[in-house]
Amino acid sequence: MREVTAGVDIGGTNTKFGLVDRDGNVLIQGSISTQNHDTFEDFINDMARAIHEAVGKVGNCELIGIGVGAANGNYYTGTIEHATNLKWKGIIPLAELFKKKLGVPCIVTNDANAAAVGEMVYGAAKGMKDFIVITLGTGLGSGIVCNGQLVNGKHGIAGEVGHTSVNPAGRYCNCGKRGCLETYVSATGIRRTVYKLLADHLEDSVLREISFDNLDTKMITDAALKGDVVAKAAFEYSGRILGMKLAETVVHTDPEAIFLFGGLSLAGDLIFEPTIRHMEENLMPVFRGKIKILPSGLQNQAASILGASSLVWNYLELQTVK
Amino acid sequence: MREVTAGVDIGGTNTKFGLVDRDGNVLIQGSISTQNHDTFEDFINDMARAIHEAVGKVGNCELIGIGVGAANGNYYTGTIEHATNLKWKGIIPLAELFKKKLGVPCIVTNDANAAAVGEMVYGAAKGMKDFIVITLGTGLGSGIVCNGQLVNGKHGIAGEVGHTSVNPAGRYCNCGKRGCLETYVSATGIRRTVYKLLADHLEDSVLREISFDNLDTKMITDAALKGDVVAKAAFEYSGRILGMKLAETVVHTDPEAIFLFGGLSLAGDLIFEPTIRHMEENLMPVFRGKIKILPSGLQNQAASILGASSLVWNYLELQTVK
Repeated sequence: MREVTAGVDIGGTNTKFGLVDRDGNVLIQGSISTQNHDTFEDFINDMARAIHEAVGKVGNCELIGIGVGAANGNYYTGTIEHATNLKWKGIIPLAELFKKKLGVPCIVTNDANAAAVGEMVYGAAKGMKDFIVITLGTGLGSGIVCNGQLVNGKHGIAGEVGHTSVNPAGRYCNCGKRGCLETYVSATGIRRTVYKLLADHLEDSVLREISFDNLDTKMITDAALKGDVVAKAAFEYSGRILGMKLAETVVHTDPEAIFLFGGLSLAGDLIFEPTIRHMEENLMPVFRGKIKILPSGLQNQAASILGASSLVWNYLELQTVK
Repeated sequence: MREVTAGVDIGGTNTKFGLVDRDGNVLIQGSISTQNHDTFEDFINDMARAIHEAVGKVGNCELIGIGVGAANGNYYTGTIEHATNLKWKGIIPLAELFKKKLGVPCIVTNDANAAAVGEMVYGAAKGMKDFIVITLGTGLGSGIVCNGQLVNGKHGIAGEVGHTSVNPAGRYCNCGKRGCLETYVSATGIRRTVYKLLADHLEDSVLREISFDNLDTKMITDAALKGDVVAKAAFEYSGRILGMKLAETVVHTDPEAIFLFGGLSLAGDLIFEPTIRHMEENLMPVFRGKIKILPSGLQNQAASILGASSLVWNYLELQTVK
């Protein structure tokens, strides 16, 4: 009987889930509403039922664990803590409830850490011991792996590279500070950059026709590919800031590679070329030419389900080592 | 028969060594000249003889390994690579030669990493799984521990926090870049700060009587303790820069504590108070009040010998786990 793990990605609106085998094949996937459940217990009940049904549909398989990726997910406690994107407030004992319902281990972490473990278990970081995954979505998340292990830190909140400082007097950030990296480099960040450029410069741009709320990364990418001066400048600026800050990150943990995942990273050379150029320019000389900047190996797949499901395989393998 | 390890600290002028037991007692110590040996082989022969004699003098003990701390020491290869402070050029196969001579394992790393392992094995980080040691000497070194293991990185050069950027157009650094943290925060850094303050301001200061080459951290500390305005401002400035940059380091690995070791850290509150204040001010809110800044537990002892000798205990314990 084939062993499978469930990957669950809890978003503010919907929760995606799937069953995944050790090779990273997603055997079945689905989603349920997150926000239509008034209590967390109702949500867990429906989620457990959906997973149970999925196992039945796939057939001839054994569920050996559940991995959950969620904003503010804490690896150590298995809880979600004060998530701003969920209606259930306070500290939610997610792992405990899932374990009780389904009788298998449940591992929880935040989205970026799940992406890093997914990269290691199924993706382009297979066999690497030291690497970093940068997730470029609404914000900028990061998962850091050293000595073959995810770095969770003392309080379970390691890997907040998105909140290193670009400019202490810079753009306002959701975290309460100003000038954090993610206010410049993320889907929201590049949108802010485009608006800053449109405000400061006189050049024509197709982006002048689009409101801030409607502007997305794909529009900026398409405009840049057609030669739009403002869109191209926005990518150069994003790559410069990201490259400069990655040069600082690199000297901490000396990674073999940094993987860029999601959103902005799908713009390809538009973002990779300036990021690599500016990272190399700003790197301490002994690191130059040694650190690869690569696209995630989980792009365009059910990445968040894979990332979450990978937590279980990783957990079981670490248990075996101990 | 008591097991002991040898700790060897290779400096440009002299090499200090000692025998240490598992509890961190230095049973004997000595030193030989580094620079009086024309070839590296001669140096190894004399060093091996000195260790052999020390074991005889202590009596009733068994040497189980040699730990070496050296600038540019590489943990993975056991070599010293292109050290600028030694007359022997190129890549020196240190561990191999020591092992051949004395028949026990030899572990090599750089000074700051040795300090971090020493803190974990004998010092104030006993029992901690996630912490950072910052060594404040001529430069600023750092050793990062995550999940109970030293972070060496892919290329064995992790932990170069001294070369994160304070100001890309700032002070010239030995690494070839400008504005690195260690050009501001280190024995040399605070000296440069004093001279900058003396150049910019009109205040009287006892430090105006001292040449750049003669100025040392102790003089600046003594002046600050007597209320010298320039010396006090130099410590405030150093603490501000260090605090701001540690706030960036913290979000990477979420340490339980950061230990300050040597040189500048001996100035006590003069450096700790502004460092803590500015780190807290600049931290991402979720980390505030969580990260301790503490003095090293190995201060004022034979710290470099302890750090080097601890590498062996740490190595043997990791072998046992595997």
